[in-house]
Formats: sequence, structure tokens, C-alpha cells
Amino acid sequence: MKLDDAETPRLLLDTERLQQNIDMMAARCADLGVTLRPHLKTPKSLKVAEQAVPDKASPLTVSTLKEAEAFAAGGHTNILCAAATAPTKLAHADRIQCTTNAWVILVTDSVALVEAADAKAGELGASFDFLIEVDCGEHRSGVKPASEELLQVAEALKAASHLRLVGVMSHAGHSYALDDPEQIADLAEVERAAAADSASMLREAGYDCEIVSIGSTPTVLHARHLEGVTEARAGVYLFWDLAQYSRKMCRLDDIAVTVLATVIGHNREGKSIIIDAGALALSKDISANTFAPHVQYGFVCDVDTLEQFDGLSVSEVHQEHGTVFVPDESWFDRLPIGSQVRVLPNHTCMTCAAYDAYDVVQGGEIVETWPRVNGW
Amino acid sequence: MKLDDAETPRLLLDTERLQQNIDMMAARCADLGVTLRPHLKTPKSLKVAEQAVPDKASPLTVSTLKEAEAFAAGGHTNILCAAATAPTKLAHADRIQCTTNAWVILVTDSVALVEAADAKAGELGASFDFLIEVDCGEHRSGVKPASEELLQVAEALKAASHLRLVGVMSHAGHSYALDDPEQIADLAEVERAAAADSASMLREAGYDCEIVSIGSTPTVLHARHLEGVTEARAGVYLFWDLAQYSRKMCRLDDIAVTVLATVIGHNREGKSIIIDAGALALSKDISANTFAPHVQYGFVCDVDTLEQFDGLSVSEVHQEHGTVFVPDESWFDRLPIGSQVRVLPNHTCMTCAAYDAYDVVQGGEIVETWPRVNGW
Repeated sequence: MKLDDAETPRLLLDTERLQQNIDMMAARCADLGVTLRPHLKTPKSLKVAEQAVPDKASPLTVSTLKEAEAFAAGGHTNILCAAATAPTKLAHADRIQCTTNAWVILVTDSVALVEAADAKAGELGASFDFLIEVDCGEHRSGVKPASEELLQVAEALKAASHLRLVGVMSHAGHSYALDDPEQIADLAEVERAAAADSASMLREAGYDCEIVSIGSTPTVLHARHLEGVTEARAGVYLFWDLAQYSRKMCRLDDIAVTVLATVIGHNREGKSIIIDAGALALSKDISANTFAPHVQYGFVCDVDTLEQFDGLSVSEVHQEHGTVFVPDESWFDRLPIGSQVRVLPNHTCMTCAAYDAYDVVQGGEIVETWPRVNGW
Repeated sequence: MKLDDAETPRLLLDTERLQQNIDMMAARCADLGVTLRPHLKTPKSLKVAEQAVPDKASPLTVSTLKEAEAFAAGGHTNILCAAATAPTKLAHADRIQCTTNAWVILVTDSVALVEAADAKAGELGASFDFLIEVDCGEHRSGVKPASEELLQVAEALKAASHLRLVGVMSHAGHSYALDDPEQIADLAEVERAAAADSASMLREAGYDCEIVSIGSTPTVLHARHLEGVTEARAGVYLFWDLAQYSRKMCRLDDIAVTVLATVIGHNREGKSIIIDAGALALSKDISANTFAPHVQYGFVCDVDTLEQFDGLSVSEVHQEHGTVFVPDESWFDRLPIGSQVRVLPNHTCMTCAAYDAYDVVQGGEIVETWPRVNGW
């Protein structure tokens, strides 16, 4: 189908850009001497997983068991579910392990969860492998690195009948608050040391620690070295977005997903153009705006060239309306009612979540549709 | 299934509260002497439509053709798609009209769209009925009320071979910026007059104007009268949310949807509890916070009583993590890891959009699952 004929809004994916991004991060991790475990919470798509993780025995990361289930059913066999689990989710994790060849690795940061998980595993006749999350400064979740608390959780896992400790992970989510490469490199070192020091402490205390996992796209890109780390998690690099562009992590030309929208109104008095991509189609996330307030809800671009129209952004959103303020009347001729635009997303993880599928676009045509795995 | 056993996050619906809300608005519109045309862009559910519009010949409103398609397939026959349409969507609208008994009413505010739609209708061998949108002060879309521009669009519809003018609509979306009943009543009068005066002008000029449609939940609730209006559109009253509560439109006990979440972490140093409902499960919409900043991403409530825990809100969100700051250590005992909470949504339209379905809850059990119609 030609884009011209496509009902909008819809989510377009440029797989050439995706492949370039995949190659870039693969080369970067090879340089760092670590395994890349791509985080697929942004794409949530088996087809993207096949491109990003062509060797199905290679590791990948997910944020939900629904993603894990889809990727396991698709043949991927090494899946880390990177948010602390809840006991009520273990039956689901067990089903995935029982019906596929996948190794599903779970995450914990508390003795309480370990004890509850062990009891549940007993009920289910299941066994689960866990990473212990260590907090490298984001202060969201995780035990303190190389701490007494870390040893307590490790000891609880050892004492558990149905659980096994397989490693540690840290996540410098606060790297998203930075745009200076030196500061990000410093933070990457904190993230690395948190994981590596915790692994050393566990090994010295006699525990196995096969996996030492770090990551966030910015820290993986700017780390000076990753000594003591076995693998890096990164996800947003697959698609990029204006939030990452605003932090100088990517170029505009690297962004692989856009929202196709149609001009449905001209407000001449209000000097604005109305498009049919609003709060649901773009999301209300404005992460980019900390560093680049002019991004607003996304850059408005030419459908063919993907060049931003002279400073145009989506300025306001309602559920199904996006308002694009224009500097002068000439825009009503340049963007007539019924014409299409493409919007570069502010924060791609949130924008993509509104869509059931990606439309893969090549030369102005939709050539394939790749389903997403939304929800829980 | 008992809530205790349910994997989270999930979207719970209390159909008793829904019914009370339905009854309240039905009574209100009966008092005002207008037909209620419920806006189903919030629930996007055929089962909710069956409850809110039990007589399937009665009018309803949608925001997408996908909703229109689902409700038409479910037997509803009078469907207004209340955002200006794009020519590329007309084939879809025609399919709905050809395969069901539904009357699909579209919206326009420009001669350009009318001309493009007529050409498209000719290609399709279809015919479409339109309302003209008039701008009652929100300045998003619509022609000026009772204006020369209104007559031009009406004339274009009359000149079109395949289109028909059936009425006018206005929408005081800016009523959401108010919380004072008198000011809302004043605005309701502006909204009413915009539609009624436009209808009078059209009739005087010899055009038919069967439908005179106004609406937004706040203006319908506070209008002093609706003379000259035939129908009112309102939607968020079906579920309510904290954005409406913050504007004194509803009580907390009226809110019919909640997000069920599980405590997955305790951060004792950071005095916070981590739940598995984050930015995707709750949305990043903070509409309530203009009037009630303490709402943050939603109130954290007891699963059984739905009472808010002493001032607790979701303070920060990441994709799959919600951070609830707690005033003291006692909360780690009151909300142990693995325990559940329910979150009252900040803005229900955006929160619901993340879910495939509602779990209808009665007495601590999920008794039915009602699918949603997301996307476009």
C-alpha cells in the first residue's frame, strides 16, 4: 500500500535505519568485549527481535512476561525479564519455561520476594533462576552494591529449594538525565563498578555469579571500559527518538520510527494546523523537552524526505487531535487539508505502545506489517 | 479469578459504579430535555456501549472509525465520529455503512475537506452525512459560530453530489480548564449558543439542520439550559477519574476504573514502595495535577475498600515501575512485597488505552473480561 492511501495515524518503521542501529550497537559491544543483551521493551515485536537477535540462542531482555512469552514462542531461548517479579507472575513464567526451550531469568532485590517465590515455585513444581538487582544510584530499586543486603538476598536464594542465583544486574536509568558525554562516562563507571564489585563480593563469599549485567543505552555508548561485566543491556538505540537526540545520543537520521498523520484542519486565526495524531497516537511523554523544549510532542516532518518542516512541532495534543502552530499563512498551502506528515516521536517507548503493529515502509510504500506485543 | 491470584497490572471495572454514572447522566439530560449521545472514546468497549446505550438505535459518539466499526458490528445504528475526518478514511466509513445498519455521521469544518470527501465518495460510489463543527472558544477546530465561513461549508455540502449536511456540533473542551461551577455554566452557555445560533443561521439560509449537538461532561453537568440543542455528548462521566474529581465534577466513590498493581519492591532508604504499574500501565498524563498536584500519577488505594491509603500517590513512573513515596517505615509492613493495591487513574482516557480489556470486578473477584477497541 502506498502511504498516500493509508488511513492514519499509523506507526511506520524504517528497517534500514533499524539495521544500522543494530550494527552500531553490536560493534560497540564487541569493542567493549561484552555480550549485547538487547532490551526489547521498546519494539515489543518478534520481527524486530529476529533482526536484533538473529541467533536465537543469544540473550535478550524484556520488561513483561507477555513479551517473554512471544519471544520464547518465536524460538528465542535466553530471556531476562528485567523488572523485579511478583509471586503471582511465577505461574506465567513457569508456563513459558514448560512450553518452550526458553531460559527465563527473573530479577529480585529482596529476601521477602525470594521467600515468596520459593514457596510459589514449590506449589508449581517449578524452578527459577534469578539475578539480584543492585542500585547504582538511580534509587528506584536494587540493593546497595557489594553490601550486606546483597549477601542476605544471595543467602536467601541459596537457602531456597527451587531458586538459583545466576548473577547480578545494575541499571543507570538516571543516565537519561544527562547529556554530557564525560558525565555519562563517569556514571557508566559507577554502573559498571556496582555490578562488578557485587559479583566479586558474591564470588568471594562462595556464590556463583555467571551473569554480570549492566546497561542503559547512554552508559553503554559512553563507558570507558566494562571490565568485570559479562553483558550490556540497551534498548532505545534500536529505534532512537527525540529524547535521545536531545541528549546527543543519536542523529535525527538514526530515528527509525515515525507516526504518519493527516492534516484534518486549518485554523487560520489560531495560525495552526490540526493533524489526526494526538495524545493517544503520540503519547503525552515529553522526556525530550528537558533538554529541547522545542520538541514539544514531536517534530513534524516531510513524508518523503523525513526532513523537519522549518521548526514545526506538535505543540498541543488532545485525544485524537494534534495542534501544530505555524509561523505564517504559507503553511496552509504547503500542508493542505488531506496532506500527510510524519512525526518523529518524543519518547519512542511510549509512542509505540499505542499501536498494534509497525508498518514497514520502503520507498513510500508499506511493504510489511509487524505485530507488537502490548499489555501484560 | 480472585484478585489475589491475578497477574498485574490490570484494569478493573466496577460496573455498579458505571451504572450509577450512566443513570446520573441520563437523568441530567432528561432534565435538560436533550438526547444523550454518550461519547465512547473513553471505554472503547462494546460491552460498555451495551450498558450505556441499551437501545441500539439510540445515538452514540466515537473518536475513531475502529470504534465505529466495532459498535456498528455490535448492532448500534447511530454513530457520530466526532473528529474531523480525512479523505483516506472514507473507504473505511463506507465499509461500515455497507456491512452494517449503522448511520455513520462524519464531521468537517472546511470547504477543502468537503470537496475532497465528495470526490472520494464519488470514487467509492458512497454517500456520507456530515455535521459542521463550530468553534465555541477552544480554538482547536471548527468554523466561527453563525459565520460566513459556516455558510460556505454548508454551501459546499449542498453543492456536493454525494454528501449531505445533517447538523452542527460544538465542543467546549476548554471546560476542563475550569473548576468553578458558575464559570462552567457560563461556558456551557457559550457552547450552547455557538451550536444553536449556527443552526438558526443555517435554517434561515434554507439548509436542513436536524442535529444540534453540544458537549463535554462539565458543560452538560452545569448548563443552565440547552434551548435550541437537540443532543449532548459526554463521555468521561462513564468512568470518571481524578482529573474530573480535581475539578469537582465527581466524587472519589464515582470513579469506576482502577489499575490493580502489586508491590514488587521496598526502598527503605528512599522511603518508597515500588509497584508494577508504571508509565505504560498508568500513562504519563497528569491532567488532574493542575488543580490537585498531590494526585501525581494516581491515588494508591486499598484493594478491598478502595479508600486511598493516607495520602499515598504514585509519585514517579518508569516504563514498568511506579514509585510510591511513603511517609514512614510503617508502610513497609502495611504494604509488604507481593501485596496488591489499586490505583485511581489521573486521566482515565489515557490510562485505559494501555489495556486490551477490562476485568469486571465484583466482591474481590474478576467475573468477566470486556475487550477494548484500541488503535485506529
